[in-house]
Amino acid sequence: MRVLVIGAAGMVGRKLVERLVVDGRLGPDAISQLSLVDVSAPDPVQAGFAVDSRAADLVEPGVAEALVAAQPDVVFHLAAVVSGEAEADLEKGYRVNLDAMRLLLDAIRGRGEGYRPRFVFTSSIAVFGPPFPDVIGDDQLTTPATSYGTQKAMTELLLSDYSRRGFLDGVAIRLPTLVVRPGKPNLAASGFFSSIIREPLNGQEAVLPVPTDVRHWFASPRSAVGFLLHAATLDTAALGDRRCLTMPGISATVAEEIEALRRVGGDEAVSRIRHEPDETIMRIVSGWPRAFDARRARDLGFRADADFDEIVRVYVEDELEP
Amino acid sequence: MRVLVIGAAGMVGRKLVERLVVDGRLGPDAISQLSLVDVSAPDPVQAGFAVDSRAADLVEPGVAEALVAAQPDVVFHLAAVVSGEAEADLEKGYRVNLDAMRLLLDAIRGRGEGYRPRFVFTSSIAVFGPPFPDVIGDDQLTTPATSYGTQKAMTELLLSDYSRRGFLDGVAIRLPTLVVRPGKPNLAASGFFSSIIREPLNGQEAVLPVPTDVRHWFASPRSAVGFLLHAATLDTAALGDRRCLTMPGISATVAEEIEALRRVGGDEAVSRIRHEPDETIMRIVSGWPRAFDARRARDLGFRADADFDEIVRVYVEDELEP
Repeated sequence: MRVLVIGAAGMVGRKLVERLVVDGRLGPDAISQLSLVDVSAPDPVQAGFAVDSRAADLVEPGVAEALVAAQPDVVFHLAAVVSGEAEADLEKGYRVNLDAMRLLLDAIRGRGEGYRPRFVFTSSIAVFGPPFPDVIGDDQLTTPATSYGTQKAMTELLLSDYSRRGFLDGVAIRLPTLVVRPGKPNLAASGFFSSIIREPLNGQEAVLPVPTDVRHWFASPRSAVGFLLHAATLDTAALGDRRCLTMPGISATVAEEIEALRRVGGDEAVSRIRHEPDETIMRIVSGWPRAFDARRARDLGFRADADFDEIVRVYVEDELEP
Repeated sequence: MRVLVIGAAGMVGRKLVERLVVDGRLGPDAISQLSLVDVSAPDPVQAGFAVDSRAADLVEPGVAEALVAAQPDVVFHLAAVVSGEAEADLEKGYRVNLDAMRLLLDAIRGRGEGYRPRFVFTSSIAVFGPPFPDVIGDDQLTTPATSYGTQKAMTELLLSDYSRRGFLDGVAIRLPTLVVRPGKPNLAASGFFSSIIREPLNGQEAVLPVPTDVRHWFASPRSAVGFLLHAATLDTAALGDRRCLTMPGISATVAEEIEALRRVGGDEAVSRIRHEPDETIMRIVSGWPRAFDARRARDLGFRADADFDEIVRVYVEDELEP
C-alpha cells in the first residue's frame, strides 16, 4: 500500500508519520511506500518500508499531478494556512486552503477511471460560527466566521461532490482544538489552552488570558492521529454523500483543565498559571464553539480521549517520557 | 446610479432589464448607466438612461477587472451553467459557476477600499439535498446532491466571507423553481412544471412525466425580478454575516397546478395534459425539496406570489397579453 502525507512536517503530520512507521501498516494492508510532502522537505524517517520526502508547493503548475503520479492508495491532506494567517493574508489563505486542494483533487481525477484513492482531509470546527447552541449536532449549518473556516467549508463541499462523482473516496474530519500541543508557545489565540498545561509541567510560568469558566472542545494530538487512521480505513459506504464528520472530543472549561493539571502536576504546577485577562483573546474565544454531539462520527467508530485527565496524561507520555 | 447585469440575456436577466428600463430607478436612486453582459451580447434596449451591452467570458484574463472598472453601484450576477450541464461537464460547471464568481469578487476587491458595491447573486435551492424535512427552515444544512448545488453552496460561502471582510455588500438569493417559463419546452428535468401550464394555454399538448401528488417549490419569473430588486435595495445590516437567503415561494402539487390551470384555461386546457410516466424524471424529482419556511427572507420584506393561481395569471399577463 502506498501512502502520501501532504503537510507531513506539521505537528499532526509528524505524529501521523511516526505512527505509520511504528505500525508498518494501515488497517489490514502493509505499507510499501510512504511519501512525505510539505512546503519545506519533511525530516527523513527510518522505516521498514520505502520512504521519500520532498518539498513542494501544491499551487505551482504540475506539482499536484506529480504528487499523485505514483497513484497512492491513501492520501492524507493536512497542509493548511492556519486561521490567523488566513485572516491576515486573504490571497494566501484561499490559495493554500482552497486552490491547492482543488488542484490535488483534479490531479487525482485526471488519473482516470481506474484510480480512486481514499482521501483524508483535515477540516475544522471553524466551519461553524456563532450563534451556537450549547451543544452542536451533526446537522448544524456551516456559517463560518473567518476566512479559514470559509475555506474549509468550501473544501468540504468540493470533497463531497468529487466523492459522489466517483473520482475519489473522500473523508473530511473536523478536528477539535488539539491540546496539549508540544513545543514552544505560539501566537495563536487558542495557544493558552495548551500552554497552561504545558508550561507548568515544564516548570515554567503560563499566562491565562480568559476567565476559568470559558468552555471549549478538545482532543489530544494522539486522538487526532487515531481519527486520521480510522478515516483512512473505515467503510465509507456508511457515509453516503456527506463526507464531512465532526470528530468527537472533550468539552471542558479552563477550570476543568486546571483541575486535571493539578491531579497530574500538583498545586505547584497550578501555581505557575498567572491570570492576565486579554480583551482581544476573550473576544475571539467567545465566538468559538463549546461542545458537540459528534454522533455520526462515534457511530462510525471514531474515539476521542476519555476526559481531560487523559489529554494531560497523553502529553506526559508522548512528550515528557518518550 | 450605475447598474451591471451579468447574465442579462437569460430569462431572468431579460425580465430584470425590462423592469429596470420601465422603472428608471433602483430604490430611491435614478439609474444613470445600465451595463448588460452575457456570453453572447444581450439585445440592446431603449431606455431613458445610457445602456451598453457586450459579450464577455468572465474567466478570460482581465475580463472581470474590465467589467467592474466603471465601479457599478449594484452588480447583479445571474450567469450560470444550469444543473444538467454542470453535471454533464464538470470543468465547465466549476469554471462558470465558481471561478467566474471568484474572479468577479476579486476584481471588486482589487478596486480598493473606497469601492463596496451591492452584489446580488442568484443561488438556488439546489444547495439542499435529501433527506429533507417536509418543510425546510432557514437553518437547514447545505448538503447538495449535484455539482451545480455544490458550486452554488461554495459561492454562497465566498460571498459571505467577502462581505464580512468589507470588500462588497453581498446578498445571495436562493430562487425557487421558476414557473411558468416562457418559450419552448426545454430538456431540463423540471421543464414539465412549466410546460403543463404553458402548452395547454397555447393550445398545445403537454406531457406530464410524474404523478400528480408530486410537490415542489415555485415562484413566478415576475416574483424573481421582485426578489432581485429587493435584494439590491434592502438594508443589509439585518443580514449580519449570513448573506444567503432562501426566497419565499409557493409549495404546490402537480394536482394543484392543474386545478389552477383549470380555473384560468378551463377543462379544455386541462385535457391537453397527457400523463406519460418517466422513471428517470420521477427519480430526479423525488430528490427535490417540497416546501420551505423562508422566514428570514419574509421578515426582510421579500414577497412571493400569493398562490399558484397568481403564478398562472402572471404568465398570462406577462407573456400572452403583453
